[in-house]
Amino acid sequence: MPRRLVSREAAPTDLACQYDHVRGHTAALCTPLGVEDYVIQSMPDVSPTRWHLAHTTWFFETFVLIPTLPQYQPFHPAYERLFNSYYNAVGDPFPRPRRGLLSRPTVADVMDYRAHVDTHMRELIGRLNPPYDAQLAATITIGLHHEQQHQELMLTDIKHVFSCNPLLPAYRPDAQRRQGIAPALRWQGYPEQVVTVGYAGDGFCYDNERPAHRTLIHPFEFASRLVTNGEFQGFMDDGGYRRPELWLADGWAAVQAENWQHPLYWRRDEQGWREFTLRGDEALDPDAPVCHVSYFEADAYARWADARLPTEFEWELAAREAGAPGAFVEAEVLHPAPAADGARGQMFGDAWEWTGSQYLPYPGYQPADGALGEYNGKFMCNQFVLRGGSCATARDHIRSTYRNFFPPQARWQFSGIRLAR
Amino acid sequence: MPRRLVSREAAPTDLACQYDHVRGHTAALCTPLGVEDYVIQSMPDVSPTRWHLAHTTWFFETFVLIPTLPQYQPFHPAYERLFNSYYNAVGDPFPRPRRGLLSRPTVADVMDYRAHVDTHMRELIGRLNPPYDAQLAATITIGLHHEQQHQELMLTDIKHVFSCNPLLPAYRPDAQRRQGIAPALRWQGYPEQVVTVGYAGDGFCYDNERPAHRTLIHPFEFASRLVTNGEFQGFMDDGGYRRPELWLADGWAAVQAENWQHPLYWRRDEQGWREFTLRGDEALDPDAPVCHVSYFEADAYARWADARLPTEFEWELAAREAGAPGAFVEAEVLHPAPAADGARGQMFGDAWEWTGSQYLPYPGYQPADGALGEYNGKFMCNQFVLRGGSCATARDHIRSTYRNFFPPQARWQFSGIRLAR
Amino acid sequence: MPRRLVSREAAPTDLACQYDHVRGHTAALCTPLGVEDYVIQSMPDVSPTRWHLAHTTWFFETFVLIPTLPQYQPFHPAYERLFNSYYNAVGDPFPRPRRGLLSRPTVADVMDYRAHVDTHMRELIGRLNPPYDAQLAATITIGLHHEQQHQELMLTDIKHVFSCNPLLPAYRPDAQRRQGIAPALRWQGYPEQVVTVGYAGDGFCYDNERPAHRTLIHPFEFASRLVTNGEFQGFMDDGGYRRPELWLADGWAAVQAENWQHPLYWRRDEQGWREFTLRGDEALDPDAPVCHVSYFEADAYARWADARLPTEFEWELAAREAGAPGAFVEAEVLHPAPAADGARGQMFGDAWEWTGSQYLPYPGYQPADGALGEYNGKFMCNQFVLRGGSCATARDHIRSTYRNFFPPQARWQFSGIRLAR
Amino acid sequence: MPRRLVSREAAPTDLACQYDHVRGHTAALCTPLGVEDYVIQSMPDVSPTRWHLAHTTWFFETFVLIPTLPQYQPFHPAYERLFNSYYNAVGDPFPRPRRGLLSRPTVADVMDYRAHVDTHMRELIGRLNPPYDAQLAATITIGLHHEQQHQELMLTDIKHVFSCNPLLPAYRPDAQRRQGIAPALRWQGYPEQVVTVGYAGDGFCYDNERPAHRTLIHPFEFASRLVTNGEFQGFMDDGGYRRPELWLADGWAAVQAENWQHPLYWRRDEQGWREFTLRGDEALDPDAPVCHVSYFEADAYARWADARLPTEFEWELAAREAGAPGAFVEAEVLHPAPAADGARGQMFGDAWEWTGSQYLPYPGYQPADGALGEYNGKFMCNQFVLRGGSCATARDHIRSTYRNFFPPQARWQFSGIRLAR
Repeated sequence: MPRRLVSREAAPTDLACQYDHVRGHTAALCTPLGVEDYVIQSMPDVSPTRWHLAHTTWFFETFVLIPTLPQYQPFHPAYERLFNSYYNAVGDPFPRPRRGLLSRPTVADVMDYRAHVDTHMRELIGRLNPPYDAQLAATITIGLHHEQQHQELMLTDIKHVFSCNPLLPAYRPDAQRRQGIAPALRWQGYPEQVVTVGYAGDGFCYDNERPAHRTLIHPFEFASRLVTNGEFQGFMDDGGYRRPELWLADGWAAVQAENWQHPLYWRRDEQGWREFTLRGDEALDPDAPVCHVSYFEADAYARWADARLPTEFEWELAAREAGAPGAFVEAEVLHPAPAADGARGQMFGDAWEWTGSQYLPYPGYQPADGALGEYNGKFMCNQFVLRGGSCATARDHIRSTYRNFFPPQARWQFSGIRLAR
Repeated sequence: MPRRLVSREAAPTDLACQYDHVRGHTAALCTPLGVEDYVIQSMPDVSPTRWHLAHTTWFFETFVLIPTLPQYQPFHPAYERLFNSYYNAVGDPFPRPRRGLLSRPTVADVMDYRAHVDTHMRELIGRLNPPYDAQLAATITIGLHHEQQHQELMLTDIKHVFSCNPLLPAYRPDAQRRQGIAPALRWQGYPEQVVTVGYAGDGFCYDNERPAHRTLIHPFEFASRLVTNGEFQGFMDDGGYRRPELWLADGWAAVQAENWQHPLYWRRDEQGWREFTLRGDEALDPDAPVCHVSYFEADAYARWADARLPTEFEWELAAREAGAPGAFVEAEVLHPAPAADGARGQMFGDAWEWTGSQYLPYPGYQPADGALGEYNGKFMCNQFVLRGGSCATARDHIRSTYRNFFPPQARWQFSGIRLAR
Repeated sequence: MPRRLVSREAAPTDLACQYDHVRGHTAALCTPLGVEDYVIQSMPDVSPTRWHLAHTTWFFETFVLIPTLPQYQPFHPAYERLFNSYYNAVGDPFPRPRRGLLSRPTVADVMDYRAHVDTHMRELIGRLNPPYDAQLAATITIGLHHEQQHQELMLTDIKHVFSCNPLLPAYRPDAQRRQGIAPALRWQGYPEQVVTVGYAGDGFCYDNERPAHRTLIHPFEFASRLVTNGEFQGFMDDGGYRRPELWLADGWAAVQAENWQHPLYWRRDEQGWREFTLRGDEALDPDAPVCHVSYFEADAYARWADARLPTEFEWELAAREAGAPGAFVEAEVLHPAPAADGARGQMFGDAWEWTGSQYLPYPGYQPADGALGEYNGKFMCNQFVLRGGSCATARDHIRSTYRNFFPPQARWQFSGIRLAR
Repeated sequence: MPRRLVSREAAPTDLACQYDHVRGHTAALCTPLGVEDYVIQSMPDVSPTRWHLAHTTWFFETFVLIPTLPQYQPFHPAYERLFNSYYNAVGDPFPRPRRGLLSRPTVADVMDYRAHVDTHMRELIGRLNPPYDAQLAATITIGLHHEQQHQELMLTDIKHVFSCNPLLPAYRPDAQRRQGIAPALRWQGYPEQVVTVGYAGDGFCYDNERPAHRTLIHPFEFASRLVTNGEFQGFMDDGGYRRPELWLADGWAAVQAENWQHPLYWRRDEQGWREFTLRGDEALDPDAPVCHVSYFEADAYARWADARLPTEFEWELAAREAGAPGAFVEAEVLHPAPAADGARGQMFGDAWEWTGSQYLPYPGYQPADGALGEYNGKFMCNQFVLRGGSCATARDHIRSTYRNFFPPQARWQFSGIRLAR
């Protein structure tokens, strides 16, 4: 039996709904943008908004429409290569660092591309009949989760683009701010135990969350909330960015090469620290979780605080008892918000949480067959796992077994710090 | 008496006319572009179209309106730095390689900026009274010639941007093609003589054309037209790009580092050689002048042809007897055209001609006072002089004493090859 | 109680013996070298032989003599910085990539330095009295293991230096070759079990092997010997270096950037494949273990072979039943040798074995106090664990819990491939 | 008739003498070196001493012995490639930046190589009979001048190597210092005139000094001595390294990229400025000529001093009236010395003088035939001409028409500043 990324068979009704919901959310994220904003690639990691719009569409065209509909005409012959991200099995992708060199296809062309693919996708979904089409439904479901991942990247990428502009444009100046006083940090203890980690349900999950398997957890304590900006300033005031003994060797090299002196998007003026957000340039909120820190900074902070980062399995165990989640993208806060008093955990939303686990396959891991096997497995090297989602993540995209991953020097995601010991 | 870039005092009527003419041509060049096209910087040498539109406007605001009109309010406080190209005396310019990171100000904002400055400039020009305002008129005249230079860069830059796109967009698919058979190359002899070179008239010229001075010319022969694509293919077929003995050492290093195998914008498909032009992708015309070659390629070709490149003074002497010019930008050919039969020289228009002269100051050279002194003089190092203008140059911008200059590896200008011996 | 790298208290007699033994072996390794050979740094990862000689001596001077002997005069005031490798707590180290710029101190100076430190060390060791000096003895023991690590690097570094020379000098042309027929590869099965891993004895170990802790092992099979050159040629013949689907994304990027087409030190001439060894240039032995492969190549080979690399704990479990070891440095073979028939495992010696485990701290890991805390812990990021030692490792340096680590692109160590599934 | 680098036919007796003299001086320069010193390449521009020893020998073997003596056996088959500097006609040279990766052939091997070639060369020279062997004698003469050029590079290269070493080794601590008070700077005026420049004699000259030709010189004034360290400090104290208006654009970019704040080899300690010399680390002598400045620094200094650099022809004209020369290498001062009072010019020796002339071919320039045609001509691009020799130049190597050339950013030669206006 072929291996697949997805196990659940979605009902066609749900799928049609979900399709419209996800595709519509992508469009909604573009509302505040001018045509010029869609085009810029501010660093190799960042993709232009227009590329995200086209690539997520390419996914459906390439993995659903072309293999399924014999009569289907691709919207444009050059798009197969132009909007391929990294699937070598599909062909030679257009080089990532050159995505920002393209002014054509225009935004309008890309919107037409989306409409063209949407029309065919909706028609196809309308004709799906289980159980025959289970595999197809599964691929469509992956496409939707894939698009949700790119929705988050659209936000972090446009934030980076805007941050390079001395005019400091605001993406959503009208977005609400959530304020509050961060409660005191408490520690929750866990005894040694063998737990089952990874996804064992029958809904959607990525292949990297499988197979569910047992692991032995050693006793540990877990912090009740994320580290705040105010606490991180304590690290800075104590010379955190100037003390090599607090850093991994590669981290210290990055501090010196990049001249890091504070988290990304912070700057200081006469009045004090300010932070560039998707809402615009703001005074730094000491109670909000620190974010846009690299793994190196998270690790150095933890060492300074006489603690460490949790492993991904400690996090997953703690997440089972999580209370109310923090801000997801639907809240339109677009920035991590202070932990609510009395809440347990601040585990989901607000900011991704760096774990001390490098991103590796689970025992018995099998990538999906075909090109989709390139989705996750080939990145299992020199990246660290992050857990829990952020203020830019869709609420129905995340789960406790979800494994996000970035290289340890990455800072442009909404990545924050959770302590364990 | 202060030193100035310009000597002629323009009559206000002329100036108003010229201002509208030049500024209008800039706008006309933008007609074929979509908003996305204004934003891209495809390499550090290239600037986004929108930047050219803003920078040429900044020039008038900075060097004319602000120093002259006490009540003038700059259009936007951030533009002084954002659209400064390289005038250190005006402040710290925004880094050139980052011009392509800006999506704001939008194209519409920049158009408003142009309109705002145009309004004040027209009003100011209307009030000019000689002789009192001679210096001011001179500065405005520089601003217009400056804008004409950027008009040419707008064309060469958008050509480079489009060439990076696998879709090969055409800037002006409707532009006319001029065809013809290149006449046989003839040699015109010149005896030894002392000639006066440089600008000695009372019209406009740049400071680098001054002072006019005498120089001793040795006997030489000068080719009757530019080298053609067909002739350059002969060099290629003879292993030109693989034979180090034909190249300067730095040129050979560039050939290997950049893997040069043909002029920029050529590519080969099953039918033969094609060339990407502002009119779109075309079959290579063997009778048209070769262009988009570096100094290194021009020099290697000349060595292969048992000739050499002319010095800039040989060129200037020969240009005194030039016949009808080739295509300027007004012809809307937008590509070098075959030499007309019987014409003398093909000296002006079509393609800039690399000379064997490094760009150095004339004896007694004095840069202009103030920030405008940075216009030319500080680039007098490691560049070679080009003469004669191109198909992207405005007809009233060029003259026989005009000195253009680029580093020897530059290929994205309309630069061609003239032989001497 | 202070944390230490070493737990065992060595008896002074042993220590004196060990000191002479280890220091003598370092000197013996230099016998085949000319003065010029000591000076070269062929890439940033490689250090000149002379630097290894001085740095291992610096270790004793810095961590033993200076803190212990109040009257001790450092041999040279500049050496503290010059021969510090990476201990920020000791001061600002001389930059690693510049080690090859130094012609002074000369080799003779460095030999004097060694003699000077040896004299004081021997005197000090002679005066040690347990239990009072347990900590000191432990530090000396670390220094000896440290020097053994550098002995291995001396060999891999000089091999790289010689390989850059078109003359292909042989380090030890007289070294013996061990030949044989590699036995068929068999698989040994292991059931699920909880095992204790890490060092739990009372001898010497590094801090990264502690604390011993329990871990849950899933069922697996383990290959009976290392992958051979002949088997690896099968991968190459099957397009292994040209098929992206076999590679991690970072690995495929390395293949393209570095143009990898075979293991390091292989080359092909008319007669077939040859391998550069410390014995000189030789015909490739198809029965010998493949070595000088990166993690990326090991991982790609395993995927091609429908297997995977073992985790470091699977390896450690399998190593408990290991049979006779392969070649260590004392065998003076200086290259991995074919597995002996009937032997179990080929676990120790011959070639380091890449595991699929990224190098991370064990649960409850505590780095040593003081500068020696920088020995291991700060490198726990983006490196993979290798196990088992090589033909360049001293026999008494290795043990089943020993964790070596290198970045996944490193190839200049004697690193080979063990399969699991 | 073939074109040649050299015109004079040397008498065999002279040649034998000269050969011994030049080759002997090379050997003498090595006396202060340890074996380790011969091996280091501290930057791509620098070659190891051993390479210079071998390459100058290779020149005689390749261009004299092999083509002349049918029975001659090359000393080693690999040396043809290994010690080829840049003669593509001879084959593919070993890459320049990798010269420092070679520990073999050893210094002793290279000395054997020299002896072997010397034996054959001496025998050959003994058998030369004019006029038949004129061409051969000319090639030998070039080889001797070539070796003299490398003698100077041996000194500037070992100085750079030693300067990278925190121990600051002295090459010749015993070399004499010449002290004195620099006389006041005076200006000598020259009227407009047509002069003949270039070499017109019948002795040796390089092809780049030919043909002698007439040129028109404009009126100018010429400074009576080189700029001193004390004067250059005035430039530094006046913010010279921080004021972009004083610099060429490329020069200002170099200042920022390289963080230049003073000439190469200067450093400041508590007592004041010090300069690293071939005699060791010394207090800066304010009366000595400033040296180890780039063209950019020379040009910026001249602009600051309201002067300019002379053209190479102005220099050549002024040199005709030069008084007693300064220190050449035979003086064993090994550093520029203060100008003698009353002397005219300080034109020769002490420090090379940057001119404002880019290095270009003379009208009618013809490179020599064959591989020796690569000696000079292919470097005529993006370099500036220096004149007059230095304290590291052999006295019989220099003449008033001699054209040295380096890129404008080069600082490791003994390059100083002469003013004109």
